[in-house]
Amino acid sequence: TSQDIMDTALTLRLRQLLLLAEQRLTSLVAALGKLAGLHADLPMMARTWGQAATPTSFGAVVAGWGAPLIAHLRRLDELRPRVLQLSLFGAAGTSAALGEKSGALRKTMAQALDLHVAPDPWHSARGNIAELAGWATLVTGSLGKMGHDLGLLAQTGIEEVSFGAGGSSSTMPQKNNPVLPALLVALAGHVSALNSAIQGAMVHAHQRDGAPWMQEWLALPQICIALARSLDAANELATRITPHPNAMQQALNETGGMIFAEALSFALAHEMPRPEAVQAVKQLCQQASESGQTLESLARKAFPALESDALFSATEQLGSGPEDARRFAKRAARLEHGAAGSKGAQ
Amino acid sequence: TSQDIMDTALTLRLRQLLLLAEQRLTSLVAALGKLAGLHADLPMMARTWGQAATPTSFGAVVAGWGAPLIAHLRRLDELRPRVLQLSLFGAAGTSAALGEKSGALRKTMAQALDLHVAPDPWHSARGNIAELAGWATLVTGSLGKMGHDLGLLAQTGIEEVSFGAGGSSSTMPQKNNPVLPALLVALAGHVSALNSAIQGAMVHAHQRDGAPWMQEWLALPQICIALARSLDAANELATRITPHPNAMQQALNETGGMIFAEALSFALAHEMPRPEAVQAVKQLCQQASESGQTLESLARKAFPALESDALFSATEQLGSGPEDARRFAKRAARLEHGAAGSKGAQ
Amino acid sequence: TSQDIMDTALTLRLRQLLLLAEQRLTSLVAALGKLAGLHADLPMMARTWGQAATPTSFGAVVAGWGAPLIAHLRRLDELRPRVLQLSLFGAAGTSAALGEKSGALRKTMAQALDLHVAPDPWHSARGNIAELAGWATLVTGSLGKMGHDLGLLAQTGIEEVSFGAGGSSSTMPQKNNPVLPALLVALAGHVSALNSAIQGAMVHAHQRDGAPWMQEWLALPQICIALARSLDAANELATRITPHPNAMQQALNETGGMIFAEALSFALAHEMPRPEAVQAVKQLCQQASESGQTLESLARKAFPALESDALFSATEQLGSGPEDARRFAKRAARLEHGAAGSKGAQ
Amino acid sequence: TSQDIMDTALTLRLRQLLLLAEQRLTSLVAALGKLAGLHADLPMMARTWGQAATPTSFGAVVAGWGAPLIAHLRRLDELRPRVLQLSLFGAAGTSAALGEKSGALRKTMAQALDLHVAPDPWHSARGNIAELAGWATLVTGSLGKMGHDLGLLAQTGIEEVSFGAGGSSSTMPQKNNPVLPALLVALAGHVSALNSAIQGAMVHAHQRDGAPWMQEWLALPQICIALARSLDAANELATRITPHPNAMQQALNETGGMIFAEALSFALAHEMPRPEAVQAVKQLCQQASESGQTLESLARKAFPALESDALFSATEQLGSGPEDARRFAKRAARLEHGAAGSKGAQ
Repeated sequence: TSQDIMDTALTLRLRQLLLLAEQRLTSLVAALGKLAGLHADLPMMARTWGQAATPTSFGAVVAGWGAPLIAHLRRLDELRPRVLQLSLFGAAGTSAALGEKSGALRKTMAQALDLHVAPDPWHSARGNIAELAGWATLVTGSLGKMGHDLGLLAQTGIEEVSFGAGGSSSTMPQKNNPVLPALLVALAGHVSALNSAIQGAMVHAHQRDGAPWMQEWLALPQICIALARSLDAANELATRITPHPNAMQQALNETGGMIFAEALSFALAHEMPRPEAVQAVKQLCQQASESGQTLESLARKAFPALESDALFSATEQLGSGPEDARRFAKRAARLEHGAAGSKGAQ
Repeated sequence: TSQDIMDTALTLRLRQLLLLAEQRLTSLVAALGKLAGLHADLPMMARTWGQAATPTSFGAVVAGWGAPLIAHLRRLDELRPRVLQLSLFGAAGTSAALGEKSGALRKTMAQALDLHVAPDPWHSARGNIAELAGWATLVTGSLGKMGHDLGLLAQTGIEEVSFGAGGSSSTMPQKNNPVLPALLVALAGHVSALNSAIQGAMVHAHQRDGAPWMQEWLALPQICIALARSLDAANELATRITPHPNAMQQALNETGGMIFAEALSFALAHEMPRPEAVQAVKQLCQQASESGQTLESLARKAFPALESDALFSATEQLGSGPEDARRFAKRAARLEHGAAGSKGAQ
Repeated sequence: TSQDIMDTALTLRLRQLLLLAEQRLTSLVAALGKLAGLHADLPMMARTWGQAATPTSFGAVVAGWGAPLIAHLRRLDELRPRVLQLSLFGAAGTSAALGEKSGALRKTMAQALDLHVAPDPWHSARGNIAELAGWATLVTGSLGKMGHDLGLLAQTGIEEVSFGAGGSSSTMPQKNNPVLPALLVALAGHVSALNSAIQGAMVHAHQRDGAPWMQEWLALPQICIALARSLDAANELATRITPHPNAMQQALNETGGMIFAEALSFALAHEMPRPEAVQAVKQLCQQASESGQTLESLARKAFPALESDALFSATEQLGSGPEDARRFAKRAARLEHGAAGSKGAQ
Repeated sequence: TSQDIMDTALTLRLRQLLLLAEQRLTSLVAALGKLAGLHADLPMMARTWGQAATPTSFGAVVAGWGAPLIAHLRRLDELRPRVLQLSLFGAAGTSAALGEKSGALRKTMAQALDLHVAPDPWHSARGNIAELAGWATLVTGSLGKMGHDLGLLAQTGIEEVSFGAGGSSSTMPQKNNPVLPALLVALAGHVSALNSAIQGAMVHAHQRDGAPWMQEWLALPQICIALARSLDAANELATRITPHPNAMQQALNETGGMIFAEALSFALAHEMPRPEAVQAVKQLCQQASESGQTLESLARKAFPALESDALFSATEQLGSGPEDARRFAKRAARLEHGAAGSKGAQ
């Protein structure tokens, strides 16, 4: 039937897409792995709510972009056999016109096309297609997060990363717009919107239903194209990302030690109850804000006995950041070289 | 940190939700399995585009509702270890305040809470939460399809199924509204809409971001409640679904043999090229529409040599429907009794 | 600047779109007006929750499709001056490069292009574009409702309307699929999904923002195309809709008088308290269901004094349906002939 | 009928909501008007793609948040009579049970409740409700843009605005999180997602349909609550926004004159063809980036004849920003004092 033919044509194309997506994800993880390894120990400001939080390492940030992609590769392995299934169930899913040997025929044809044998008719059970669209949404969402971070880090006044020549402006000669990062964010939003159309199309009447099927055909091709483009843009970006250690260090410095407030409170908590320590640091922070003095100098004065050299050094306050970055770099390298099990159990 | 605490509180609650969802899915599959087995051979009209297509069996229809749920159970097994992960990575994901033994501490605490150890900080990598929301969307989508079918089959003028007392009307004494089927459809739409908010919240800035985190908290609880309610309603419905064989048979009869047009065309294709056979049947169909005669009587006249008894009998034209229904019933029974591997590879 | 140029190019194209949409909406209202007027008195079954409710007229049903379109035309008049605004505010909305006469220049250029003068820069205030997308969603939503009803009314076993040759099947010679109605439903879903991307793109950073702007450009063209196609399909359908009075009458008859249960309860409420009357009719309905007798015969026996001839006649129980249909037909005719004020205040 | 009762109860509540929304929008516009007027001449950096663009004024930025709200107030005036309509059309929209005087009854009851008389039954024509949801999406979208800007401007390293005490952190004593701005962004996303459910519910079957009606009831209350909360948060924020002129000036300075590149290119275009001028400035910008010298000093050297004092002064390069800010302040004041026509034609 036409749906069998179209669903099979769709599946054969999706196979190509999944192959492409896997390749691009793998090369992206590899590129990010190298970047994370290279800059595992480079201190920068971690930000929560857009505000200085604690130090982290640029490698850890890159690992935060890359690690979810390994999970996406694992999800891809899981969903592939569900998506790449031959549709050959006849007009209404009973294979009636195919005669008694429909099961055997399906098996043979699936082998010939190198597709999986569908255990059940899926004319109107579109969960596998919806799962694929959901997966594309996850992938483009993760890349959107990376793009969003890059755009923020490249902002005028922050400028902790750059990524080569960006977009020029029609009127402002100085501009170097972060076009690829913005594209990643835009594609994430586009795919998420279209995904909701695909999910809605699961509510499919009877043995086949015109409207949801059309809705799928309106949305799915765009989702696939957007997924491929997003992965392509992210790969291009990944090889061009350059961190700027000076800007990173300056951003840390400009907090006047505020970035170490948490560390200071934990250090003081060895001497006094933790709530009291937090309270003391809060007061110092306020004093620093009002007086323009640094938290560091105020803390040294207020707690002269405190061993504060390591406390106010970003390099010493990176926690597991460098280790996380190197661990990701290793997983990425193993993945690139196809080591079994590299996608981990989780 | 507050996010560690909240994410862990979230995870512990999600564990309960996933347990509940698994139980309800399993009991639903079991109930549908019994229904499919019981009515494996009951002929009814298959409909595509709302139009008579070919015969199918009611058991096959029920299997079409239930089989996707088995795939959802399998997906649940896959995502559970990704979702049920301890969050303990400190303010900015570097575990700095937790000291050098943060990894060991995380392991111990995860064991104590019976959670998985997260391989990476997930403060701002929300893919696992988004995967869960996507899964809830798939499940409620499949149940929405079942609800939609039930509402259509219970329509006045069709009435091929009923499901006990429905909703009454404030003004129309005769009404028996299909409230639970409609609820399944409504919840599918609701979850799909909220899911797009969760997916959008993947574009999360830096080490933690206020707005997407709030957006998650606004949408996720409702998704969970809607999932649980949808499964509950489907379970209630499943035990009450009653097919009406007479109405099913009458619907088949009223097509005047049109429902066998495809079968007729394949039978004729033994005598002539298939395109010619299709053309011949199309003409007979049109003649039947215009004259009010049945396709069966016209076909017997036009092709007196045709062995047409089996051809115009719904029972003989069910294809693999009954077998599919019984196969699903067996899988459902195995699943209910916990047989390993019953969720299949696909 | 490039955004001024692109937004102005966009606006000039949107002007064409709005013109086209207005023409197609007007001709659609006109066609539906004629249909409603022609069949103002044709009784058919009204359905709520897919169940027989009370009688209505086919003309009233058609008026229910058409009346919302008149409101959409009025909304279009309201939003047009907000959408068709010249963008000429320079790189960052301050018109700095345009010099001191930027206001006068904008006025002159707007006149030359026959656009409205924007009162404020809209580089990053995308409410007008979002309003347009929202309007397209409303229009395609209303057409989706019409398509959904048509698909349901054309179902095998209902067949109360037809609309000429539909889609054929690749394998089932008897099929006449309701392709255009399904298309209306699919486009409504597609536009609604894309609309959420446009609405999301209102959260636009600073004076211009790459990602939401790209997101707009990914979604808006498709929304426009889908709107135009939906209106085109609806116009084609409107001229082909044919009601089938016999099938409508038969559907009413087959309820065995149940369709008059509400009317019966109101008639009895002249003789007894309304709750008692409803209860009495509920019992008769149940008796009718169980015994196979009609509600009409049971009611005549139970309440021999009741004046029941008009009570059990669909023609007498149409309420304001015929009048509503004719009123809509008149409004549609006035609108077609351009009478001022025909879009009403509401 | 129950739908008449529920839709009327809904309408009466929506009337309260619209009143509240109008009041909050008006007071918000007033507060922003004062802020814009006060800081009409305060220079700050305009940013496009997150990058330094040209100078603007803080007042112009505030006007950019407030002006769209005036358009939303005008939209509210337009939609109010469409939304606040009495529903009294009986079980299936024919008013049959209401007898011949249903029209008069509807008029009387509408007057008594101070609602508009619906020109047509709207049991299954949900365009007015969908329009309301769309409007709430526009309003929260505009507030989301304001929140997004505020969060970005308050970022560590930018800090051009603050808004009093923000959220504290459970672990980081120095934190002052921009909770209200993030809330505005989150509510915009939440409402946009729920809006897509309401729009989808327009595809409503026959005279009333269970599933879309339930879907409306699941989503609409939350949209209303989110709208009210968003307006409340924005009002609270508006009175607390404090610009930091020094930080703004410093940000302008740190571009080393790059922010004036467009102005420079236009000035040079008096001496040479514009493309040549742009090219010259691009080269100077690149030289500035590489050498660490300012664009200003390089330009003075390269074009000693250039009258460059005004060219490199932010105060002189604000274009229409100050005037736009003051114009908005006046409109806001007029609106606050109820002057007719203050919402303008556009």
